[in-house]
Amino acid sequence: MIPATILKKKREGFELNEKEIQFLISGLQSGEVSDVQITAFLTSSCINGLTDSEIATLTFAMRDSGKKFNFRNINRPIVDKHSTGGVGDKLSLLLVPLVVPLGLAVPMISGRGLGHTGGTVDKLESIYGFNIRPNDEVFYDLMEKNFCFMASQTADLAPADKKLYHIRDITGNVESTGLITASILSKKLVEDLDGLMLDMKVGNGAFMQDFDSARILAESMANVARKTGLKMRILFTSMDQPLGSTAGNWLEIVETMDSLKGHYSSDIRILTERLAAGMLILGGVESDLETAISKVRKIWDEGTAYQYFEKMISTQGGDLEKSYSLYNDLEEENIVCDFEGMITQIDTLYIGIAGIMIGAGRKNVDDEIDYGAGIIFHKKLGDEVKKGDILATVYYNKNRDIQSAVQLIKQCMIISDGNNFKMPKLILDEWVI
Amino acid sequence: MIPATILKKKREGFELNEKEIQFLISGLQSGEVSDVQITAFLTSSCINGLTDSEIATLTFAMRDSGKKFNFRNINRPIVDKHSTGGVGDKLSLLLVPLVVPLGLAVPMISGRGLGHTGGTVDKLESIYGFNIRPNDEVFYDLMEKNFCFMASQTADLAPADKKLYHIRDITGNVESTGLITASILSKKLVEDLDGLMLDMKVGNGAFMQDFDSARILAESMANVARKTGLKMRILFTSMDQPLGSTAGNWLEIVETMDSLKGHYSSDIRILTERLAAGMLILGGVESDLETAISKVRKIWDEGTAYQYFEKMISTQGGDLEKSYSLYNDLEEENIVCDFEGMITQIDTLYIGIAGIMIGAGRKNVDDEIDYGAGIIFHKKLGDEVKKGDILATVYYNKNRDIQSAVQLIKQCMIISDGNNFKMPKLILDEWVI
Repeated sequence: MIPATILKKKREGFELNEKEIQFLISGLQSGEVSDVQITAFLTSSCINGLTDSEIATLTFAMRDSGKKFNFRNINRPIVDKHSTGGVGDKLSLLLVPLVVPLGLAVPMISGRGLGHTGGTVDKLESIYGFNIRPNDEVFYDLMEKNFCFMASQTADLAPADKKLYHIRDITGNVESTGLITASILSKKLVEDLDGLMLDMKVGNGAFMQDFDSARILAESMANVARKTGLKMRILFTSMDQPLGSTAGNWLEIVETMDSLKGHYSSDIRILTERLAAGMLILGGVESDLETAISKVRKIWDEGTAYQYFEKMISTQGGDLEKSYSLYNDLEEENIVCDFEGMITQIDTLYIGIAGIMIGAGRKNVDDEIDYGAGIIFHKKLGDEVKKGDILATVYYNKNRDIQSAVQLIKQCMIISDGNNFKMPKLILDEWVI
Repeated sequence: MIPATILKKKREGFELNEKEIQFLISGLQSGEVSDVQITAFLTSSCINGLTDSEIATLTFAMRDSGKKFNFRNINRPIVDKHSTGGVGDKLSLLLVPLVVPLGLAVPMISGRGLGHTGGTVDKLESIYGFNIRPNDEVFYDLMEKNFCFMASQTADLAPADKKLYHIRDITGNVESTGLITASILSKKLVEDLDGLMLDMKVGNGAFMQDFDSARILAESMANVARKTGLKMRILFTSMDQPLGSTAGNWLEIVETMDSLKGHYSSDIRILTERLAAGMLILGGVESDLETAISKVRKIWDEGTAYQYFEKMISTQGGDLEKSYSLYNDLEEENIVCDFEGMITQIDTLYIGIAGIMIGAGRKNVDDEIDYGAGIIFHKKLGDEVKKGDILATVYYNKNRDIQSAVQLIKQCMIISDGNNFKMPKLILDEWVI
């Protein structure tokens, strides 16, 4: 096959067949297709779109570009959860210790923060000693011992995705339903899953800002899931304010522990229950949503999930006690309310950007993170406030100037009389694929 | 400037401003913009198109990417001619020795064969000893001595075009009015021209197969010419059969000499006169087309042009006598007519491809050419033929199997009763910019 001929076909708006797409991805590995040539494919795909069949073929080719796990000897259903990303989204950390004691196995490969959103890997790295990059032996060992692991993507898992993502990033080709679908699912399919729970974030702090664009991505993901026989549930959830009461890596670990110990924000509780229950149904250990939710509640409220969380962290080398000592010399600054009224809007995207400004996230891929930096939100959407109330507290490294971030956060929390305020629905829809 | 931001803007269909395009091209030279990034720009430009203003900026940025000539000390108008390419098109070789004795200077940088079309550089290389790559000193020396040179593009002339063209070639991004315009004109503007005569080929042997697509390219070229103050004439001419009676590098040199000595096909004579006259008007040495044509006729028929051709070749190191001896052991095969009737169609694109098959052109950019290989056409469009007539003769290197090429040529020369035949107009239109 001649790359230029295939690339011209895609550029002119024609659908590529299975062999052509497989050739492009395997050629990228073998060197028969150059980075320059794959860029033409990515750009044309962004502009002309990809058909359902092209997306599925691309996903499978990317999945097959590296090592794949085989957990068939683990005598449990293998289920994972993926979130399309938001601010303060620490739900993965709560879900694993809730569903594993209830009979599932969860091999969770996560990502770092992307743009204004946080990443599970960064949060786990804030824990002293936590081994985010187990080797192959450890991966299988953890699955046998704990029925789970939480780890970062490695170079040999779906390497084509890594390469494609880097090229999309530097060529302005990020926004594409098909390419996003293939990127997410190729990595998840490597995990040898029976089911995938997808938390599709919608709102001013999500990549999909409205339900229509979220639905388009969900349809694309559902199509691939159907083709590969992967059971999937897609929960559409609101990302119109930071999730829970913190945003920032170590702060979110602490909030996870507090939540599992019973001190949770209601949004954390509701979404975690619902996602955990979905995972149990996907794994076939429960069939009814209400029953599944009540099992999750029980294990949560009895403290079993918290114990499992501690075990999970320590098995992967993490030392929670020592971690606290890493973050005890942070500075704090309160954001004080100037008006009386109600918080009727939180510009969550810019809260995420303020998080980057205080060191909790990265501007560039190579930037170092202040794992202790973050924001605690004392007030959330719909809360009544008066002058002098503390809206939020910023935690930061003393060497950092955070004044513009503080101003930005203050501007993001919009206070009005609340007359026309309607609290956004937390769960917008759920699809069972 | 951040490349990804500019590339996203272009991908989404917005117009890039001058600074953004200049940044992309200068960044390509400096390394701030990678080949992968320029590929995204080229692909988006192919799909979304380029505005007139983008095309002009791109052309100028590409022109300025390398060395530029300065011929202001040559006391003559500097005029060149460019053809969009066809089969058997040797008109550049005739034009230079016709217009230089009439007062113009012609610094002609030409290309190699592209796709199924021939290139002036390949034809000149068939001449023994001809120096197609003069150095800078020789360039200026030739202009002073002969008021002309004929040469190949060098690495330091519009290097951005070389890079962009290579990328377009391997990524299936060749067809784009804007990118074609910028590629042609950036190279020509390096020549410090006062005027450019453009031979816009239209027909089944040209890149522009119909008048509408030729007009779109012509408008794009005219727009850039206007912006830079370059005088331009665009002659739209038919490429529905090979031009003249030969196709093949050395054969076309011989046909050039024969034509200048008075043995010409009528299409060669008519087009050359008209293009030469256009060049004289562009250079301001004539103002009236008829007068210009009659001057061209005079210098042609008196033999002055032929003498100038010999001088031009020998000054650049070429030895025409020795060249003949290079090509005297070729094999010949006649293509014989099977029917009685009239030649009513010649599939010129495939004649060009047959030319490649017999070794007269390149399949791949690194292929070697048989300079002696080629086709002499004994019959042309509108000629009456009978069974047993020789339609064409193929000249080829004895080591080459040419049977499928011979079959192809035969199939390309379509014979019918001629009842509805209408000879295509040789000159379709002329624009004065």
